Amino acid sequence: MLFDSTYPKSFASDNHAGVHPTILEAMAAANDGDAPAYGDDKWTAIFEEKIKEVFGPDAQGFAVLNGAGANMVGLAPMLGRYDGIICADSAHIATHETGATERLLGVKLLTVPTEDGKLRPADIESRLGGVGSHHEPQPTVVSISQVTELGTCYSPAEIAALAEKAHEHGLRLHVDGARLANAAAYLGCDLKAITTDVGVDVFSFGGTKNGALAAEAVVVLDSSLSHAIPFLRRQSLQLASKMRYISAQLTALLTDDLWRRNAAHANQMADRLAAGLTDIPGVSLAYPVQSNAVFATLPKAVADTLQQRYLFHFWDETTGTVRWMTAFDTTPEHVDDFLDDIRKAATA
Amino acid sequence: MLFDSTYPKSFASDNHAGVHPTILEAMAAANDGDAPAYGDDKWTAIFEEKIKEVFGPDAQGFAVLNGAGANMVGLAPMLGRYDGIICADSAHIATHETGATERLLGVKLLTVPTEDGKLRPADIESRLGGVGSHHEPQPTVVSISQVTELGTCYSPAEIAALAEKAHEHGLRLHVDGARLANAAAYLGCDLKAITTDVGVDVFSFGGTKNGALAAEAVVVLDSSLSHAIPFLRRQSLQLASKMRYISAQLTALLTDDLWRRNAAHANQMADRLAAGLTDIPGVSLAYPVQSNAVFATLPKAVADTLQQRYLFHFWDETTGTVRWMTAFDTTPEHVDDFLDDIRKAATA
Amino acid sequence: MLFDSTYPKSFASDNHAGVHPTILEAMAAANDGDAPAYGDDKWTAIFEEKIKEVFGPDAQGFAVLNGAGANMVGLAPMLGRYDGIICADSAHIATHETGATERLLGVKLLTVPTEDGKLRPADIESRLGGVGSHHEPQPTVVSISQVTELGTCYSPAEIAALAEKAHEHGLRLHVDGARLANAAAYLGCDLKAITTDVGVDVFSFGGTKNGALAAEAVVVLDSSLSHAIPFLRRQSLQLASKMRYISAQLTALLTDDLWRRNAAHANQMADRLAAGLTDIPGVSLAYPVQSNAVFATLPKAVADTLQQRYLFHFWDETTGTVRWMTAFDTTPEHVDDFLDDIRKAATA
Amino acid sequence: MLFDSTYPKSFASDNHAGVHPTILEAMAAANDGDAPAYGDDKWTAIFEEKIKEVFGPDAQGFAVLNGAGANMVGLAPMLGRYDGIICADSAHIATHETGATERLLGVKLLTVPTEDGKLRPADIESRLGGVGSHHEPQPTVVSISQVTELGTCYSPAEIAALAEKAHEHGLRLHVDGARLANAAAYLGCDLKAITTDVGVDVFSFGGTKNGALAAEAVVVLDSSLSHAIPFLRRQSLQLASKMRYISAQLTALLTDDLWRRNAAHANQMADRLAAGLTDIPGVSLAYPVQSNAVFATLPKAVADTLQQRYLFHFWDETTGTVRWMTAFDTTPEHVDDFLDDIRKAATA
Repeated sequence: MLFDSTYPKSFASDNHAGVHPTILEAMAAANDGDAPAYGDDKWTAIFEEKIKEVFGPDAQGFAVLNGAGANMVGLAPMLGRYDGIICADSAHIATHETGATERLLGVKLLTVPTEDGKLRPADIESRLGGVGSHHEPQPTVVSISQVTELGTCYSPAEIAALAEKAHEHGLRLHVDGARLANAAAYLGCDLKAITTDVGVDVFSFGGTKNGALAAEAVVVLDSSLSHAIPFLRRQSLQLASKMRYISAQLTALLTDDLWRRNAAHANQMADRLAAGLTDIPGVSLAYPVQSNAVFATLPKAVADTLQQRYLFHFWDETTGTVRWMTAFDTTPEHVDDFLDDIRKAATA
Repeated sequence: MLFDSTYPKSFASDNHAGVHPTILEAMAAANDGDAPAYGDDKWTAIFEEKIKEVFGPDAQGFAVLNGAGANMVGLAPMLGRYDGIICADSAHIATHETGATERLLGVKLLTVPTEDGKLRPADIESRLGGVGSHHEPQPTVVSISQVTELGTCYSPAEIAALAEKAHEHGLRLHVDGARLANAAAYLGCDLKAITTDVGVDVFSFGGTKNGALAAEAVVVLDSSLSHAIPFLRRQSLQLASKMRYISAQLTALLTDDLWRRNAAHANQMADRLAAGLTDIPGVSLAYPVQSNAVFATLPKAVADTLQQRYLFHFWDETTGTVRWMTAFDTTPEHVDDFLDDIRKAATA
Repeated sequence: MLFDSTYPKSFASDNHAGVHPTILEAMAAANDGDAPAYGDDKWTAIFEEKIKEVFGPDAQGFAVLNGAGANMVGLAPMLGRYDGIICADSAHIATHETGATERLLGVKLLTVPTEDGKLRPADIESRLGGVGSHHEPQPTVVSISQVTELGTCYSPAEIAALAEKAHEHGLRLHVDGARLANAAAYLGCDLKAITTDVGVDVFSFGGTKNGALAAEAVVVLDSSLSHAIPFLRRQSLQLASKMRYISAQLTALLTDDLWRRNAAHANQMADRLAAGLTDIPGVSLAYPVQSNAVFATLPKAVADTLQQRYLFHFWDETTGTVRWMTAFDTTPEHVDDFLDDIRKAATA
Repeated sequence: MLFDSTYPKSFASDNHAGVHPTILEAMAAANDGDAPAYGDDKWTAIFEEKIKEVFGPDAQGFAVLNGAGANMVGLAPMLGRYDGIICADSAHIATHETGATERLLGVKLLTVPTEDGKLRPADIESRLGGVGSHHEPQPTVVSISQVTELGTCYSPAEIAALAEKAHEHGLRLHVDGARLANAAAYLGCDLKAITTDVGVDVFSFGGTKNGALAAEAVVVLDSSLSHAIPFLRRQSLQLASKMRYISAQLTALLTDDLWRRNAAHANQMADRLAAGLTDIPGVSLAYPVQSNAVFATLPKAVADTLQQRYLFHFWDETTGTVRWMTAFDTTPEHVDDFLDDIRKAATA
């Protein structure tokens, strides 16, 4: 499908948005003569320092190229040859990596059904039955998504409880933070409060969905794991030779709270959209709105009408649930126009 | 090692250079509102069309993020579970992918020693001994690098002979074209003459070493293989969500022969460097200069002196061979200054 | 846990039983001077002929060393790099291979919950949602177990319906036949009626649980797949150098219906056990008894008492379900003694 | 090729021989009622005790099904995701595992050419160039074969020197001991003297080529590695459910020095063959005879004549080198008849 400029604002994905001007400028500024390749450059040194500033002195940051890469590179050092990852059955690593978790990491996903995309400590317990049996994979990592794939957020206390339960059983806690910024913006806390401070071992910090061009960070808080990352990043095809341009994007996001401004704005636009839906007949929210995602349930005919004009995805055709995403560049007018069209379609 | 602006031009690698201004501009121009993700955008459609224009109507192009990714994604659809790749023992896929060929592709490299980095038809024959034996991997692909890792180029006739030999035995021919542009510029031919026209099945077309930020193309000439590429690209962590910015780089390179201008210039700077070495005592060329690489053999002490001021790599410490690379932005003055310093060091 | 001769007959597993005397004799008879290794021997030629005799002229049999090996070697030629296997969530390949399916085959298991361990055509449909999306693994194989892990059997018509549905969508049908003999004995049909005749593409025929020492066959009915098996078997560590002793076991089982006699006897012992349970208070069957497995639900205290004397496994501690297996060498006295002890424990 | 009883004794491989009667008897003796599966049986407990008796109290033995399996299971716990194995380019793991080392272990083989199949400490040094570079696999294991694939043996001092060099650089030493018994018999030492006593970390002890049916042991001397073996053995398809019959074979070999008697006899037959060749014109030894292998170079026409009557392999067709193996059941008459025929063919 080729997008056409006659389309209005896309509500399909936060990566339909372009690049935030500040980030493009940072990339252009990095285009300054020679620089050693593969991360031995000054822009990368600055990025690494920024990561420590934001996530604490034990945090080591490694820039990678996309979210799937961030997950695979971050998970790999915690996983041996016969291990398993406990996660929600809606986790991105379980549903949307074209089997990369199985093929590249070579491990089994020990999935748990959830109501809202969030894992609970008891869910960890529920998948420990095979521990010690050499006929079954051995769980060594718990992986959660913050924001979850259903747009919900874990509170710091919820993450701490998961970390405690995981560590109690000798497992590590990983966070897929493709939208970590949106979670911190929603929770009104800093990024450290939902990672370093609550027992997370390895996480990703996503840039691309929050205004970057292509840049994610793998952040490792356990120094016994960080030694492996450069090798794993290179082997996993996630090392940029001209690294400075990736590092510069992440530094720009982490400077002057650009990450928070972008994420908070996107969240507000989702709130505005959700608020506007309340009095539209036949349309209801499927999950609480805690980020830049609105999951709505509406009649198929209404959704079909809207898709003639708007880009967005069906989440579950059997229930009539759709996903509407906002982005850093979604405007109140975009939302209001969309609401008008939803209302028209719903009441036609 | 952090690069410092007091360093002169790097001769270490063509990816120490920055991004060509035309390519940065093309990326900025793509920053125009929304676009569908993962390649369903108009910039990618234009890139795909360009590939057909340059490589012929059967060529299908797929944009990826780096050279290692281009090799892995391009090789994967030709390889089953017990297959082998015949290549020179100096091939990048054999020496510098951190074992990705073995881990991600799961195959054995059937390497052949060469004098100049170039494989000959007889080398293919030499590794077919295990065909049919279920104790040995089955060779199914021949992979060559154009330009080779030693800076040498295959003529169109040489590639055609390899393709013929490979196809005669039911193998396919793959070309690692990280510096394909430099080869075409050296040979004075178009890109099609060393790929489509001479029997290559799958190849990569490198952008990053020739002025792009991070962009390579996998090009497939055999339509029975191309169906798999989108899945393999996604699974191999090589799919950019905001694909338009990758596609735009490649389109810029393929427009108005920017690829050739950049590569030809870099080649000329290597020629200038090589020419200047002829009368420097104790310095000799290790391989013919057929691209933007100069491999020189010189006394260790001379090399050490030069490394105090210049970035470059030892290729083989046992023979005292170093590799000097030029780039699209190397100037005659850079070369002449470097030659002056080599001369001083060699005659000190 | 070391078994002690003071223990009575084990009801834990059909592989707690020893080797049927006829099979040991066949192995000893094969110990006759030299024989070429790796299957180029006359005992293997006879086995291959037997497979054709039993499963039809298109069937090609390959002897392997264990059930996990039979599954991996049989599934591999049907699976590419980004594929998925649709199966019941109780399937052995999903639960008890220590992640071999993920690590060795590199694919995702697309599991479906079932009531009785049996997949239905609609279950296949339910996992086809990602077909064509390059973000998701592509289902290419449906795998069922006959007998299932819950002791139930598919009728020939049920398998035919699954094959039809699979083929309709371009998928192949695989059968894990570790207890295929028990199924045919229960159904009163020959082995061909539940494999070759109903559209199965690849299956295993288990020997070890039915009186062999260590011998399973991978049987391929689609000749386009069989070429790969010798390579896959060797690479998957499933090739015996002194193959004659493996082939001889399978031939013995397939001669004079030894497979059926052993399996029918074991099934009868399970029936006898199930029949004897009907009037024991607090003990009920969890699944219909259609093979040599009896799944019973009983109070934890009763099971604990029995485990002081008998070897058997808890299947599901939350429901109090245990699994009792009979074997070719279980006697009516074994069953009756066990029933006496169950009755005593249940009424204590 | 089907073997026919009119063929004389095979000199093609020690696994063309059958099973030693003592071993078959031990298997039959294990056929005694029920036994827990997967190694929880008394025969396996005895085997494990035997391993400690022979190799010392720190040795832990794990029975597996074949030599390829012993190598893969033994190597796996020493290898991470981006590691390499330094070995001779003639090593079995490099040439004859159908790529299992690459596919199952996912690592690169860092091979070294040798004159006689034996690695020297300097060879280890020669492959350490990439240590620390994240573009290259990191060597973590040195693997040698004892006996080597060329029939030569390492002295205890040679192994100790390799172990010392490996450990100095943080690598571990692995021994592929498919013919470890032949080496100890040749060297006139016990098995411990070439393993436990000289710094080996993990090795295999082969049974199948020395009179067993199908039985090899993985022996681990480093207790930090042994925890993983049961999981790796199960996942690698090398766990026998009816383990007692595998354990019984190994115990039989390790009892009353059966391993040494078998191996010493086979070695003597090779010596007799080699001695008889000395005065046959045009036939010469290619490598010293230090085990049960005779590598001879002879005119192609002579070899062709012999192959009309005898089974054996060409080792290198370009040099006219053939490999003749003897076995525990080769008799002096077999050798003398063969020598007569060689003489006739050579002087025809």
